Amino acid sequence: MGLPHPSVEQLDLATILGVLGDPTRLGIIAYLARDEGTPLACGGFLDLGSKTNLSYHLAKLREAGVTRTEVAGTSRLISLRRDDLDRRFPGLLDSILASARHLPAHAGLEAR
Amino acid sequence: MGLPHPSVEQLDLATILGVLGDPTRLGIIAYLARDEGTPLACGGFLDLGSKTNLSYHLAKLREAGVTRTEVAGTSRLISLRRDDLDRRFPGLLDSILASARHLPAHAGLEAR
Repeated sequence: MGLPHPSVEQLDLATILGVLGDPTRLGIIAYLARDEGTPLACGGFLDLGSKTNLSYHLAKLREAGVTRTEVAGTSRLISLRRDDLDRRFPGLLDSILASARHLPAHAGLEAR
Repeated sequence: MGLPHPSVEQLDLATILGVLGDPTRLGIIAYLARDEGTPLACGGFLDLGSKTNLSYHLAKLREAGVTRTEVAGTSRLISLRRDDLDRRFPGLLDSILASARHLPAHAGLEAR
């Protein structure tokens, strides 16, 4: 059984910005944006925080509609809701990702 | 004497997104964006909340570096820090303003 996700119509700008107003969560979406076709398991973000901490942040991102979490056996696969976000708020995700790339904390992500 | 404002170098993406993750503050920047050349006094936002409430939100926006508040006699004049934000995070402010314009709560702002 899948986890709950808001529909495209339920995506709320203030909620999304509020959830992205956190360095760890910005780090997570920057990771996911590196290879958007490939969902990441929670372990893919472990250098951003402890597993408990990440579970909390990943739930926040899912509940705001920024990411999709698919349950696959014992793992959870996380991806950006790129199409839904672009449809509802054109250009927003890209401008946030571009801004996040300039952050010193994410300098490692620039060297792809 | 002026109120404190962060420098361009101090502008922080997570802080800015967090502060904009609020419907009243999105409403305030949408108001300011309608006529960017003309700073607004606090009274210009009174349909968005009480004066006390607005003072709180305007201080949050100023402290995050989204707006500039100039003290002019007994009034305070508020404007968007458009140039500083565009220099630091190109495209971010415009994409947020464009997304805010689609919100039902700001439908009145579309009819300019």
